[in-house]
Amino acid sequence: MSKYAIGVDFGTESGRAVLIDVATGREVATSVYSYQNGVIDEKLPIPGKEILLEPDWALQDPEDYIRTYQNTIPAVLRESGVDPADVIGVGIDFTACTMLPVKANGTPLCVLPELRENPHAWVKLWKHHAAQPEADKINATARRLNQQWLDRYGGKISSEWFFSKTLQILDEAPEVYAAADRLLEAADWVVWQLTGVETRNSCTAGYKAIWSKREGFPDKSYFAALDPRLENVIDTKMSRTIIPIGQCAGGLTDQAAAWTGLKSGTAVAIANVDAHVAVPAATVTEPGRMVMIMGTSICHMVLGSEEHVVPGMCGYVEDGIIPGLFGYEAGQSCVGDHFAWFVDNCVPGSYEREAQTHGIDVHQLLEEKASQLQPGESGLLALDWWNGNRSVLVDVDLTGLLLGATLATKPEEIYRALIEATAYGTRIIVETFEENGVPVNELVGCGGLPEKNKLLMQIYADVTGREIKVTASKQTPALGSAMFGAVAAGRTAGGYDSILEAAQHMARLKDETFKPIPENQKVYDQLYAEYVRLHDYFGRGGNDVMKTLKRIKAEVKLNA
Amino acid sequence: MSKYAIGVDFGTESGRAVLIDVATGREVATSVYSYQNGVIDEKLPIPGKEILLEPDWALQDPEDYIRTYQNTIPAVLRESGVDPADVIGVGIDFTACTMLPVKANGTPLCVLPELRENPHAWVKLWKHHAAQPEADKINATARRLNQQWLDRYGGKISSEWFFSKTLQILDEAPEVYAAADRLLEAADWVVWQLTGVETRNSCTAGYKAIWSKREGFPDKSYFAALDPRLENVIDTKMSRTIIPIGQCAGGLTDQAAAWTGLKSGTAVAIANVDAHVAVPAATVTEPGRMVMIMGTSICHMVLGSEEHVVPGMCGYVEDGIIPGLFGYEAGQSCVGDHFAWFVDNCVPGSYEREAQTHGIDVHQLLEEKASQLQPGESGLLALDWWNGNRSVLVDVDLTGLLLGATLATKPEEIYRALIEATAYGTRIIVETFEENGVPVNELVGCGGLPEKNKLLMQIYADVTGREIKVTASKQTPALGSAMFGAVAAGRTAGGYDSILEAAQHMARLKDETFKPIPENQKVYDQLYAEYVRLHDYFGRGGNDVMKTLKRIKAEVKLNA
Repeated sequence: MSKYAIGVDFGTESGRAVLIDVATGREVATSVYSYQNGVIDEKLPIPGKEILLEPDWALQDPEDYIRTYQNTIPAVLRESGVDPADVIGVGIDFTACTMLPVKANGTPLCVLPELRENPHAWVKLWKHHAAQPEADKINATARRLNQQWLDRYGGKISSEWFFSKTLQILDEAPEVYAAADRLLEAADWVVWQLTGVETRNSCTAGYKAIWSKREGFPDKSYFAALDPRLENVIDTKMSRTIIPIGQCAGGLTDQAAAWTGLKSGTAVAIANVDAHVAVPAATVTEPGRMVMIMGTSICHMVLGSEEHVVPGMCGYVEDGIIPGLFGYEAGQSCVGDHFAWFVDNCVPGSYEREAQTHGIDVHQLLEEKASQLQPGESGLLALDWWNGNRSVLVDVDLTGLLLGATLATKPEEIYRALIEATAYGTRIIVETFEENGVPVNELVGCGGLPEKNKLLMQIYADVTGREIKVTASKQTPALGSAMFGAVAAGRTAGGYDSILEAAQHMARLKDETFKPIPENQKVYDQLYAEYVRLHDYFGRGGNDVMKTLKRIKAEVKLNA
Repeated sequence: MSKYAIGVDFGTESGRAVLIDVATGREVATSVYSYQNGVIDEKLPIPGKEILLEPDWALQDPEDYIRTYQNTIPAVLRESGVDPADVIGVGIDFTACTMLPVKANGTPLCVLPELRENPHAWVKLWKHHAAQPEADKINATARRLNQQWLDRYGGKISSEWFFSKTLQILDEAPEVYAAADRLLEAADWVVWQLTGVETRNSCTAGYKAIWSKREGFPDKSYFAALDPRLENVIDTKMSRTIIPIGQCAGGLTDQAAAWTGLKSGTAVAIANVDAHVAVPAATVTEPGRMVMIMGTSICHMVLGSEEHVVPGMCGYVEDGIIPGLFGYEAGQSCVGDHFAWFVDNCVPGSYEREAQTHGIDVHQLLEEKASQLQPGESGLLALDWWNGNRSVLVDVDLTGLLLGATLATKPEEIYRALIEATAYGTRIIVETFEENGVPVNELVGCGGLPEKNKLLMQIYADVTGREIKVTASKQTPALGSAMFGAVAAGRTAGGYDSILEAAQHMARLKDETFKPIPENQKVYDQLYAEYVRLHDYFGRGGNDVMKTLKRIKAEVKLNA
């Protein structure tokens, strides 16, 4: 009798459940629930009330997560006809850092009538960017107190991360901070809702909350220096018990069974993060192979058996991706977003009409035209910093550069140059890992871009000089979550005893791969050398014109 | 009784006659003739023959110039009702270097049946760009032989200029070179056709044919080193008698009187160049005030009482613009062309539709949106090198750069940054003149841009920190030519004895001027400092990436 696991992937706009055959990894049924309240970035979804949010805010409604369970899991059971008794485990993955304040029993503060109208009582979504002053304070304090853990995060804590958001609550809504018995990742909260057990996973704790297996959290003295009221934040609002991913969080409660149609007691895995859970789903459970989650941005993940400080990465966490290994993460903040910006702002009406005539979209038209070009033919070179540089410079104040344009330059040449720039950015990341003791022999792509843009994939292979494989599943995070669900169930229940074992049976790559073309590599090696020279000149202090322009811009806005 | 002069402006696509009241400069009548054969850049206009031209060729038909006389002058007489006896003088201006080979009696070789099918027998238009190998040889030979005159031309002779075109004829069609009794500027040829007298003007000789009042042409030994067959080119095909502009070339022949309806013997001025003749028409006859002819490119002209070598200008010629003064010329090769490229290649369909809705063109829409922005607000900075850099770097291999883009960057911000970049380019030219002893206190704009784009004019005033005045006439070259026609006639005939006198009476500026706004200047001074730093880094050898990219591009095309 076949056994099944369900992976639930909580995204930015929707949640998705996928029911998977544990023996083969076959995706049997999928269901998507669009969050009723979506991303809350203008006003709180309280009927009859006009509670507006400041710029850069981005919230979610925790009840949307429960509704995701209630809608999608019954749907995949229905669609597949699978007997709930044959579903042996459930895993979830989430965006991160997405966090919320709750009462001791798990009740989100935003459902309490007395706090519902306070924006700080709601879930702060990963892309809530209003905590930059708090992040600045966290970094300045860490540097002042010479906190060694800063090195693990490329020297900088992001405004998106856990303590930046926590400190913003404390700064701006001390009453919410005071009312919160617990502060936690939404990832852990949704597992809590299934199991009735509060757990904290090693992945979000490590990457987003400055925790490490060997050193734990920063000292109380550090938190006290940040704000005296934060001194005991770990012991009073969080937990020092961090569970490695790959463990079982508990069994489904009766209530959760009623929501989902699954059996009470069904194993539920410790929570995970969308990007990280994709790694074993991309067949990667060992060092040397980098997974690239390629969408609006790129997240690069690679495993290592040793601890290395690699300059400019986003973080590295022991047990962060695969138990027993160091999970290294780097990123590029502007990839698919870059091409979308270009299509929205820089492609002439004549191209729109040409695309329409051919019944394709403008992206496809540009890809077709750009495919006709040889590497180096456009004479263009770009720095892919339209949204700053995450790795390896870790500098949000860098901006884009396009060089080499002439009166004969065509839109498809600029488009291709932007793709190439992101490929050079990936090559710098790969080379930085290798120079610092973390080998990268092969690339595995997943996410939306590998499906949509073969030109881009070939350029990445040519530029990095590495073969790129692509995951067979288009729903890698959900597959990865289901794999962890099967591991939570264990072999005796028909699952697996380790994520390595699960990956061997459930994760697959496509047969088609992208291999570097030697003549292209030769040209790209020359262009890459020029890219690196510009990268270092503008990115490492040779010419701070990008920051100067941002400063002037800020002054102009201030005086306006 | 009023007296009149006619100016004929021979352009790239058409010729224009303007009849002007000598006492006031009032434009009484205008007539435009579109050349029947226009710019000949695909095939020779010989019915029944397919004689194709190579890329980069651009020819004209000399018979179109005669047709211009035959059509436009009768038309302005008719339209104005002026008695031909009251037209005291005619002046012409031409594009340059636009040159042709002719027989001793002035017959163009291209009208001879035996040479008509040879493209080299036709007029080579200023923008004929196929003589680059010859220009390279001229420059290399000059450097090898340490020719001091190179300094007068910013260190480089252009492929557009007289001896580049001459050498191309010799290289590729020695039979045409041999058949030519005379090689001359079309400007001088059209004066010859009116007067029956072959003259050569100091403006084209100086700016385009390496002549100077004090040193004459390069030595025979230089021409012999270039090609032994060229040793006696000046004495056998040209002339050492160069007449300063402002003189009378002769009186109208009976034949020309029949073509035009004017009286035989009417005074005809020595030929002039469109840009240079505009200077007195812009009221400038003294040092210290720079005229900018602002269209697809900008031509900057300023007068000086002393001789100075200014690095990176296009040339300086004694008597080149105003008799008795040194005429200094500099230029930017990409201004209106730049905005046209942007509108054609980078403005989204949504903007086209918005412009349509408002009943304006896309340029106007962009100008309106860009006008809403404060200096510095976009965070963008560009180098205006989409078509190389004419002054002060004299380097056609430089290319464009745009820096500072983010995902929030809008088309109008880029548009404004491109305008600003050309303004910084003008400021560098102005400052280079001043640093080298040629003062520039005020700017006078003429040409198409000052009429069309007030935002641009204000930005130029803010960036250069100088008031910009604008000519009242929209037909400055034709007005200037008419002024020289009035000078050729002289005071006794009802004209003027000098171009200074003519300018006092006939040239006018608009009342509206563009004055620098101090708060804008403050921001632009900061941005300009950043522009200069990038300009010098990429333009003076700090990083030759633009040339490297061009080299790679050329290699890729060669291997394709």
